[in-house]
Amino acid sequence: MHGSDHGSGAPELLGYAGGRLDRVDPIRTNAALLAEAFASPLARRVVLEGLEPVVEGGHLVMEPLPGDAWVEHFALLGVDEQQRPIFAELLADAPDSFLATPRSRGLVGEVPGHEVALYGAARSLLSWHVRHRFCSVCGQRTAPVKAGWSRQCGSCQAEHFPRVDPVVIMLAEHRGRVLLGRQHSWPEGRYSALAGFVEPGETLEEAVVREIREEAGVATHSVRYVMSQPWPFPSSLMIACIAQADDDALTLDENEIQHAFWADAEGVRAALAGEEGAPFLAPPVMAVAWHLLRHWLDGQVAGSTPSA
Amino acid sequence: MHGSDHGSGAPELLGYAGGRLDRVDPIRTNAALLAEAFASPLARRVVLEGLEPVVEGGHLVMEPLPGDAWVEHFALLGVDEQQRPIFAELLADAPDSFLATPRSRGLVGEVPGHEVALYGAARSLLSWHVRHRFCSVCGQRTAPVKAGWSRQCGSCQAEHFPRVDPVVIMLAEHRGRVLLGRQHSWPEGRYSALAGFVEPGETLEEAVVREIREEAGVATHSVRYVMSQPWPFPSSLMIACIAQADDDALTLDENEIQHAFWADAEGVRAALAGEEGAPFLAPPVMAVAWHLLRHWLDGQVAGSTPSA
Repeated sequence: MHGSDHGSGAPELLGYAGGRLDRVDPIRTNAALLAEAFASPLARRVVLEGLEPVVEGGHLVMEPLPGDAWVEHFALLGVDEQQRPIFAELLADAPDSFLATPRSRGLVGEVPGHEVALYGAARSLLSWHVRHRFCSVCGQRTAPVKAGWSRQCGSCQAEHFPRVDPVVIMLAEHRGRVLLGRQHSWPEGRYSALAGFVEPGETLEEAVVREIREEAGVATHSVRYVMSQPWPFPSSLMIACIAQADDDALTLDENEIQHAFWADAEGVRAALAGEEGAPFLAPPVMAVAWHLLRHWLDGQVAGSTPSA
Repeated sequence: MHGSDHGSGAPELLGYAGGRLDRVDPIRTNAALLAEAFASPLARRVVLEGLEPVVEGGHLVMEPLPGDAWVEHFALLGVDEQQRPIFAELLADAPDSFLATPRSRGLVGEVPGHEVALYGAARSLLSWHVRHRFCSVCGQRTAPVKAGWSRQCGSCQAEHFPRVDPVVIMLAEHRGRVLLGRQHSWPEGRYSALAGFVEPGETLEEAVVREIREEAGVATHSVRYVMSQPWPFPSSLMIACIAQADDDALTLDENEIQHAFWADAEGVRAALAGEEGAPFLAPPVMAVAWHLLRHWLDGQVAGSTPSA
């Protein structure tokens, strides 16, 4: 069995992808339409505790907007399939951290995938607002505009847009094996694809080659794009790729990578299946690294001679 | 003739891609190594006028660092193939605009491609510094750290990293034709792929589908990644894709798109060849849109029955 459902009957969910909101760009930039959406009896706010999700009965909690709410304090995430305008309230206080928490990661599987995506978009956007109250150009205060999809400086008028930080996450492949590494802080036995932020002045493919060389000392080429995932901690765009290595000798950057090794198809299969005795603990199913490994493995199986 | 050289003997250059600097991450984060690179007799600064390139004899002008230079005023772009540490001096004053200029676009073709990439990286990085002198979290002053690859707030200590803004640029394809549009401000007759910024909370593929629907009212699916390009005006990462449309009816967002139409392979061929009588004026060869159209056309020609 190949393909995205692995014969289990249910597709494995890629976390934070698969949003179903219509982002209604024309409403964001039209104050009258925005006011109408905000005043609609259908309007809802997604209930959060700080940046954390609130779940009841297998769904994110959505509430009508409070009667005394100000539209300036809310971001319009979009309009859902029931024509409900969905808002998220901007945070009054910055949280201690923007990193993933057990509760925000655990949402995957607790609520339908498109609600996880809605939460992720809200989390990224609210995280950005609370870190951008001041203008990076002149230091004065900014205020949200365009239904929370940008902020403008009250002094120099500079407009600032939400960040999306592209990250490459990739497998180097060498003779039927793929390179996996682990960071010092990870749970024991956990290995995953190497990853790093794309920098100004490089293509995705160049970023993949640079990161694998920096972290593992391996030269690669022939980069293939596989898939992408929004990662709302706070606002990464994970871009998953596979590159070809001509040599398997490793020289690790020990600040970044505690250990790395080349895993074969059987080891990857066992790890993704969560088998005891697998050579490593796979990344969580909701992470794009899991799906990248699955994609690679499916290609290995498809490319091999079937056994009788 | 297919492939990247189109039989002309010389590959068409994708602007700002193909950098050859080693970005030397270990030097950026080590003050002693950075001081050594800065003091090296091999060290050079790329000479700019504001954000504009300076060319002599078919190369970017590189000069030894002035004797009284401060390392804090420079960003280390990387080390070149002659082991020269290459720096760019941070700007004292913000330019009027960060958009592309005839001079910065015209660099492609004037100097080797890897120098265009070096310039693009410098331009993006310097543009980011001059727009981020203040902390977006607390409004106080920031200062460059890590050899110019981040800035830190002197007050709240928040660290800020250079932006890279992912943009999807894409063709919708329908029965052997591709959708092209033009913006109001473009030169007469110029058409190109639709494009837009990726937003928080969506995959690349979701961004492609959203943008085509928003701008042209066309529903698409089956998005394929083709290639990417850094675009230093000021710091976009262009991600080129092709999506499949089931219907060719158009409903344009007239704020964004002045006109759009479906071009067939012969029209695209004539436009890329710059023929008189072509149905549209193609985007410049240095832009990823040109290469995306070429990629699509090569697939059309390869997929059709060759004529005798």
